[in-house]
Amino acid sequence: MIAKSQRGWSGEPGELLRVGAGFRLADVDPDAKPGYGRKKKDGAADLLAGEQELDELQERLYAQSREDPSAPAVLLVLQAMDSAGKGGIVRHVIGATDPQGIHLVAFKKPTPEELEHDFLWRVEKEVPGAGYIGVFDRSHYEDVLIGKVRELAPPEEIERRYGAINDFEERLVARGVRIVKVMLHISPEEQKARLGERLERPDKHWKYNPGDVDERLLWPRYMEAFQTVFERTSTDRAPWHVIPANAKWYARLAVQALLLDALEGIDPQWPAATFDVEHEKARLAAS
Amino acid sequence: MIAKSQRGWSGEPGELLRVGAGFRLADVDPDAKPGYGRKKKDGAADLLAGEQELDELQERLYAQSREDPSAPAVLLVLQAMDSAGKGGIVRHVIGATDPQGIHLVAFKKPTPEELEHDFLWRVEKEVPGAGYIGVFDRSHYEDVLIGKVRELAPPEEIERRYGAINDFEERLVARGVRIVKVMLHISPEEQKARLGERLERPDKHWKYNPGDVDERLLWPRYMEAFQTVFERTSTDRAPWHVIPANAKWYARLAVQALLLDALEGIDPQWPAATFDVEHEKARLAAS
Repeated sequence: MIAKSQRGWSGEPGELLRVGAGFRLADVDPDAKPGYGRKKKDGAADLLAGEQELDELQERLYAQSREDPSAPAVLLVLQAMDSAGKGGIVRHVIGATDPQGIHLVAFKKPTPEELEHDFLWRVEKEVPGAGYIGVFDRSHYEDVLIGKVRELAPPEEIERRYGAINDFEERLVARGVRIVKVMLHISPEEQKARLGERLERPDKHWKYNPGDVDERLLWPRYMEAFQTVFERTSTDRAPWHVIPANAKWYARLAVQALLLDALEGIDPQWPAATFDVEHEKARLAAS
Repeated sequence: MIAKSQRGWSGEPGELLRVGAGFRLADVDPDAKPGYGRKKKDGAADLLAGEQELDELQERLYAQSREDPSAPAVLLVLQAMDSAGKGGIVRHVIGATDPQGIHLVAFKKPTPEELEHDFLWRVEKEVPGAGYIGVFDRSHYEDVLIGKVRELAPPEEIERRYGAINDFEERLVARGVRIVKVMLHISPEEQKARLGERLERPDKHWKYNPGDVDERLLWPRYMEAFQTVFERTSTDRAPWHVIPANAKWYARLAVQALLLDALEGIDPQWPAATFDVEHEKARLAAS
């Protein structure tokens, strides 16, 4: 195991990025790199070192669950404005682990069937099973973000949802799911540059949606909705983390660090054999 | 695009490994490396070069499907005796692509609910959608492999299944799914060594199952069942490929090459913008 200091961190990302009492999103500089004092090129090496740790911890987590259906799991929840880098996190941080241990779900605009149910219905079905690292690319928080900004539900229903989310997450934590909630925070100027690049490059056109500009025009209202999400749902057992994300490389390092924290907190162990090893060696030798 | 010859292949893996008329599994040497004349260390570099191709083709495949629900997909079907390396293929070949474009399913022993339905019921639900690379780690072929060897269904039902499988796969192909069927072929001696290693190492005990030796004792009957599978279900539109897999590095290169063939056959293109690019540039600039 490589100590965190050797991966370039001067402080605990889990503490530095955590949304605590008195947090104000408006005070976060999207260009900052809290806790990481090294340069971009060092970041690449540190990310690689972290991948090896993540890989082993993920395998242990999975192994531990094979004989124990109540074993822990991890759930990474990713929220952000368009182009903030959720896809890059999935590709470069999650993509470095064994696909067999990952349960990735990209929540889209709800279908008519999903809309007939409570907003948590489709989410409950995707909670990671024992031993898995679940990844929600967008999540139940859409229902209090775009849901609030676009008034897709009455105000009293939006209001009800914060409590429902806390209850839901509390139940997950009680079942052994470590929840890592992350908002990737970019500046509106950075978004403009990124969307502009998608428009410049024909191989990026498919990533552009005219609706992205419609949402962009509501930036201040989204920031308010995020602020309320943090105030209402950053709990002790399932806190939010806001990661400055104008520098993609920093955001990836930070998400990786939060995942490593969660896994180190679980400290998964190779399970003991459930069979008689010597007896099996003899059977194998005779086969 | 790197030509196949530059990735170390002297022949077409798709042709060399394909199960055609008169194929006999007993004639395949699990130590062979058909079509690949270079060494293990070259194999690592060639695998890496292939990853970059696979990555771009996968992204194009996915992009193409975003505006076209009838766009193609790929389905990789992996079958093998225990410890033959399916997990390594998923980890090292599939794991090198963006997780967002992969639909991975590990089929386990059927649940009671699944047993109440036709054997294809659970499989139909997991067919990859447009733009995805689906991966079946075990598949509907279990129902004519262990199903046959262990007599889990009456002989006439096993008999019926070959035709049902061909019909099912024919439908998928007609819908635009390219099916890549792979058997990883190891020798019984190699399996003994691999299972032995799992017994020697406490961090590998979780991968060992006493049932593995039970199945191992039925090796000749499994080989017969595979031979019948090849004779009955290696069709022109969904042929089987048998990959010698005693050398893991060769098997990974070969599966990667078959996937690249499938994707190059589709030749996915970046989709044209469905919006007015200049108009969007103006909207973005004004936002």
